[in-house]
Amino acid sequence: MSESKRQKLSSGSSHTPIYHLIYWPDIPGRGEFVRLAFEAAGTAYLDVSNASSAGVKPVLSLISDKHVGDDVGNPPIFAPPALKIVDGKGEGKDLLIHQTPNILAYLGERLGLIGEEEGDKYHVSQVALTALDLCDECHDTHHPVSVVKYYAEQKEEALKKAEDFRASRIPKFFGYFERVLKSNESEAKGKYLVGSKLTYADTTVWQVVNGVSYAFPKEVEARKKDYPLLFETFYPGIQEEKGIKQYLASDRRLSYSDGIFRHYPELDQQ
Amino acid sequence: MSESKRQKLSSGSSHTPIYHLIYWPDIPGRGEFVRLAFEAAGTAYLDVSNASSAGVKPVLSLISDKHVGDDVGNPPIFAPPALKIVDGKGEGKDLLIHQTPNILAYLGERLGLIGEEEGDKYHVSQVALTALDLCDECHDTHHPVSVVKYYAEQKEEALKKAEDFRASRIPKFFGYFERVLKSNESEAKGKYLVGSKLTYADTTVWQVVNGVSYAFPKEVEARKKDYPLLFETFYPGIQEEKGIKQYLASDRRLSYSDGIFRHYPELDQQ
Repeated sequence: MSESKRQKLSSGSSHTPIYHLIYWPDIPGRGEFVRLAFEAAGTAYLDVSNASSAGVKPVLSLISDKHVGDDVGNPPIFAPPALKIVDGKGEGKDLLIHQTPNILAYLGERLGLIGEEEGDKYHVSQVALTALDLCDECHDTHHPVSVVKYYAEQKEEALKKAEDFRASRIPKFFGYFERVLKSNESEAKGKYLVGSKLTYADTTVWQVVNGVSYAFPKEVEARKKDYPLLFETFYPGIQEEKGIKQYLASDRRLSYSDGIFRHYPELDQQ
Repeated sequence: MSESKRQKLSSGSSHTPIYHLIYWPDIPGRGEFVRLAFEAAGTAYLDVSNASSAGVKPVLSLISDKHVGDDVGNPPIFAPPALKIVDGKGEGKDLLIHQTPNILAYLGERLGLIGEEEGDKYHVSQVALTALDLCDECHDTHHPVSVVKYYAEQKEEALKKAEDFRASRIPKFFGYFERVLKSNESEAKGKYLVGSKLTYADTTVWQVVNGVSYAFPKEVEARKKDYPLLFETFYPGIQEEKGIKQYLASDRRLSYSDGIFRHYPELDQQ
């Protein structure tokens, strides 16, 4: 394996990865929340469809509607991302799980990204779940009627949905993140959402804010001043965290295109 | 406290509930997923807005956009349901958490609703999360553009969204639940989704199927035959489970009305 390949499949460690991320190739998408957790923790993982020759095949085979589970008792997968943990069930049996918040809860516990105090892990989970709801709603701005139809077929509805998203949903979610940072200010001075060190709530909120800013640059620019902890302390701070900074500068960080976060100028503030 | 009040606030136990469910009064909504977990386990809980004179006030105060957390370190709440666990942080400090899947993960572990084998709890979580996604999508059929506008203001878009939901989303989700039951058939013969005993994946999927059947009775009736494990074994079996059966026959089980699951005949199969 060439050096560049190895760089691409791991986040720095030279150990054989036991974590296999199975997600669509070439887009950040919901896989990005999982990648950021690995990269923040400096834990090796194999990004199957981007770092091996398998391409999209493992994803398609996993989500086939003929799939009724594997022979070691893992149930079928509804949608990617999925995470395979080699020997995760013991005795050489792999554990296979899906649903982004579920994968993050699994990894958070193992990679040290759930805080330290009693109750922290549930606060981390609730903030991440809320950020993932915002991710879903951002997706729905360009696909408000049907995920199986093209944007062009639902553009009229998308214009209405995006108007509502910009006017009421962005401030509702960003305002919540700001208040969470405020509530934790004595612990983290705006740097982290829960407790005094990095958690997957931070990486997940950072990624959603990054994606929404890509999709709606004018709207976000106009509103930034209302959320000073979020935009002046938290957001720039997270992207300077060691693992995140290295990752964002690497070619493992994929560009946005036709995934969840899309930039259609007509949907943004005019 | 009168006998009927006590019946209403607990699920049978006479112990003082340490679990306080904070959710909108008078509708099942997302609170129902939490209620079903308590009822299935026979664990006492206080349904604050339905079983005390406080009404909607505790919900409104919790989700106020002025709320920046409490004085024992619980961050603010984005939306109900929330769960207060009396002395959940120890030393008399209550733990306060929100997000339905997060509350279910917390309770599942404590009420014995996450299966038995290594990995079960993550399979339970992923199936419940997927059912909750279906719940969100069902909500969006009557509010596809904006949650702050009335149905009548987005009826045209709702007709399109509901058509897509009936044609492609119901079969996609129901087909997945059927395949999960199939994958677990040697363990549970179609009675349970994960492992060989009741989990919160079962109560959550049951409630979503119940709600979607209420909202789209003709569509679901026409499709039932395609999902024999789901409709002939799983669904009737779960509602015969001891705690669930008693609950469904009680006045604690609220009727559907203008919540997430709504029946608009024009959105159903014609």
